[in-house]
Amino acid sequence: MTLLETSATSTPEDLLSPEETYRLDRQHVFHSWSAQGALKPMVITRAEGSYVWDGAGTRFLDLSSQLVNTNVGHQHPKVVAGIVEQAQRLCTIAPQHANAARSKAAQLIAEVAPEGLNTVFFTNGGADAIEHAVRMARLHTGKYKVLSQYRSYHGGTATAVNLTGDPRRWPNDYGSAGAVHFFGPFLYRSHFHATTEAEETERALAHLEQLIAFEGPGTIAAIVLETVPGTAGIMTPPPGYLAGVRELCDRHGIVYIADEVMAGFGRTGRWFAVEHFDVVPDLITFAKGVNSGYVPLGGVVISDAIAATFRDRPFPGGLTYSGHPLACAAAVATITAMHEEKIVENADRIGREVLGPGLRELAERHPVIGEVRGLGVFWALDLVLDRETKEPIAPYGGTSEAMAVLVAACKANGVLPFTNYHRLHVVPPCTVSDAEVREGLAALDAALSTLEAHLGAA
Amino acid sequence: MTLLETSATSTPEDLLSPEETYRLDRQHVFHSWSAQGALKPMVITRAEGSYVWDGAGTRFLDLSSQLVNTNVGHQHPKVVAGIVEQAQRLCTIAPQHANAARSKAAQLIAEVAPEGLNTVFFTNGGADAIEHAVRMARLHTGKYKVLSQYRSYHGGTATAVNLTGDPRRWPNDYGSAGAVHFFGPFLYRSHFHATTEAEETERALAHLEQLIAFEGPGTIAAIVLETVPGTAGIMTPPPGYLAGVRELCDRHGIVYIADEVMAGFGRTGRWFAVEHFDVVPDLITFAKGVNSGYVPLGGVVISDAIAATFRDRPFPGGLTYSGHPLACAAAVATITAMHEEKIVENADRIGREVLGPGLRELAERHPVIGEVRGLGVFWALDLVLDRETKEPIAPYGGTSEAMAVLVAACKANGVLPFTNYHRLHVVPPCTVSDAEVREGLAALDAALSTLEAHLGAA
Repeated sequence: MTLLETSATSTPEDLLSPEETYRLDRQHVFHSWSAQGALKPMVITRAEGSYVWDGAGTRFLDLSSQLVNTNVGHQHPKVVAGIVEQAQRLCTIAPQHANAARSKAAQLIAEVAPEGLNTVFFTNGGADAIEHAVRMARLHTGKYKVLSQYRSYHGGTATAVNLTGDPRRWPNDYGSAGAVHFFGPFLYRSHFHATTEAEETERALAHLEQLIAFEGPGTIAAIVLETVPGTAGIMTPPPGYLAGVRELCDRHGIVYIADEVMAGFGRTGRWFAVEHFDVVPDLITFAKGVNSGYVPLGGVVISDAIAATFRDRPFPGGLTYSGHPLACAAAVATITAMHEEKIVENADRIGREVLGPGLRELAERHPVIGEVRGLGVFWALDLVLDRETKEPIAPYGGTSEAMAVLVAACKANGVLPFTNYHRLHVVPPCTVSDAEVREGLAALDAALSTLEAHLGAA
Repeated sequence: MTLLETSATSTPEDLLSPEETYRLDRQHVFHSWSAQGALKPMVITRAEGSYVWDGAGTRFLDLSSQLVNTNVGHQHPKVVAGIVEQAQRLCTIAPQHANAARSKAAQLIAEVAPEGLNTVFFTNGGADAIEHAVRMARLHTGKYKVLSQYRSYHGGTATAVNLTGDPRRWPNDYGSAGAVHFFGPFLYRSHFHATTEAEETERALAHLEQLIAFEGPGTIAAIVLETVPGTAGIMTPPPGYLAGVRELCDRHGIVYIADEVMAGFGRTGRWFAVEHFDVVPDLITFAKGVNSGYVPLGGVVISDAIAATFRDRPFPGGLTYSGHPLACAAAVATITAMHEEKIVENADRIGREVLGPGLRELAERHPVIGEVRGLGVFWALDLVLDRETKEPIAPYGGTSEAMAVLVAACKANGVLPFTNYHRLHVVPPCTVSDAEVREGLAALDAALSTLEAHLGAA
């Protein structure tokens, strides 16, 4: 019965009411990272630019970019056109063949990647990009262990989640993936008792150097780190830190993997965030912004030295949809639109001139904001009960009534927020306009007042 | 310069010549499972139904379905329309929200899944489907080890490749993923010295039972097996085997994961291959055929009992593109087209009436064919130097000059083959017509003659 209702000439949106969408979701869809019983997902029926609409027709300014992936906004006409035309031409071929969309996407990515990284291995997303990057590093070096940071996220598959430095690792951690975690620089909540950026850099590098010495440099294949850690808190590394990591890698024959799944493709106001820090990693993992997630796509940009390792020796990794034509056509259209419309430059300017100053101004009026940090369209508000003690308004790995109040207040004021533990991230698309940022700041201002009223009353 | 040439109003195919596509591929694309230096990929510029075209305009009958994924053939108009319309409506939303395409796809998949499996967790492909299915099994049972078969393939990420039972595991195998391998039934090359199907079933089950006893039933979370092992050789399990596995799982509190990434969605002439064997697994992994790979999509169909485990307890897994609207819209269109056009029934009939008999007839005339096995549109020719000794024409895990001659002869006769070691797999789309099968059989007949001439001369 239901089958005949569905015709391929209409989208499911035309056929299912929001109520029916919700009912079928609760009946048949198993959601990520959740206890299924408690879920009450918002039905999204429409999206355009910086906005989404729920089932009741209410419009929200999308300050989340969904999962920080719609860097060119929703339904960018050039990217939609690129997908439509490629779909009509050739949706899929196997990875062993060659195809124009894949060739062109690889060329465009290599063009915006740092000098010396010229080859692209395509995956379906960020997690498998990390899996394959780690594999390349292990086989290139002949070593096994991989160092990664606490306060990090690298994906949900076995290797990626073991490298992850947040509580999503815990239920998946059987202690056997060769992952060793270290502390990165984060002056606001310094692990190193530092009081200046220079001190934080120096002590964080000394910590890493000693950890390498104690783990054994001859056992370490790679150091993987998010250039600017994303979900874990958008901690921009202080000057000199990444250059120091690069130097330690060079000294000990360790592959430097920059995870730019979230930070890449315009998010920080640069094509890749490493440009801010003048370092060139050996491997860069990407996903999300490469085509704004319009079609699942991720990958690894590979240095010439590591590519050479696999010139005569087979690379033992792959996947059916590696270099998928439809996904690659979306990347070609996205990168082209980003060039043509100066979208990366917009993200940079918005961060420096509008969003950054606006958030700092909010902090002046809202003592619940302990720190404002970020760059480009990649900002975090670190929310605290007390600016002196820096006690967060929700515990590490958990949430709180205060955070629930804040999220509800954001939605009531017409914005879709991205939150993690005690933090509110402000991560609109790179295409966001000045007026939209101002609209978002006003909504956050109101929501923060509601939060503070709640905390004052609590 | 190159950037301005690319406009989003044309596909990369319109802009890059086949020669330029090839050149950029060799310059910038890193391919799966290969030494990069030796590759000479075929440029595919067009595809329709059962055919693809190379850069020179030569047409090939696609007996590979690419990587055994284009179950509805290439560029099925209803699926292309479904993608185009969804792309114009809403390409992507985050997994925590709800969306009509995702709700409808989950409902349609649950409808064709066995009784009692009603919930769908969506991933990007088969490998991450296995990763998440194993995670569910481990947390549902509180146990760790997972048993899988030699002669199997489960994917390229860490857990999936450790469970894999073919040489692609070797360079990735650090012996620590809790994977334990056992031998499955395969009468033609019996590990159990059996001479009848009944004996093979009985001995393979006794082997598995003893292995469970020696590994410790209290340590084993899951048994994962391809219902009909695919790339490893299309060994249809003999009567009673899978029912015996189901019984062992029930007796020992082990989760039965059926990997139907390749066998599912019509390939064997059923929606899921388990239907042939009257067993109901606890989890089914799928990808490929669910939307013919037009947009990357995979997932896990979950039993009510396992779904209940995660009603109040968070499931610790996820991914940005879980339940991606564009990928799910392609699944809705694919499954709907398969119902409307009786595509699963066509695969079944083709296998019983045309392709199976045709291949067996080839075996009568070509002594190089040691065994013909398969069902639906899922067939393998086991190629041997001698029918008595069953010595394969290429070694396990390798290739040979004879296989290279065969592949070249297939292409010269206008068909694109799928080969693995010493085997030729005949795996056209489920939509293949009688006439196309006959065309393919004639081409294989000629190619096998070329192979035999080569072997005779060798």
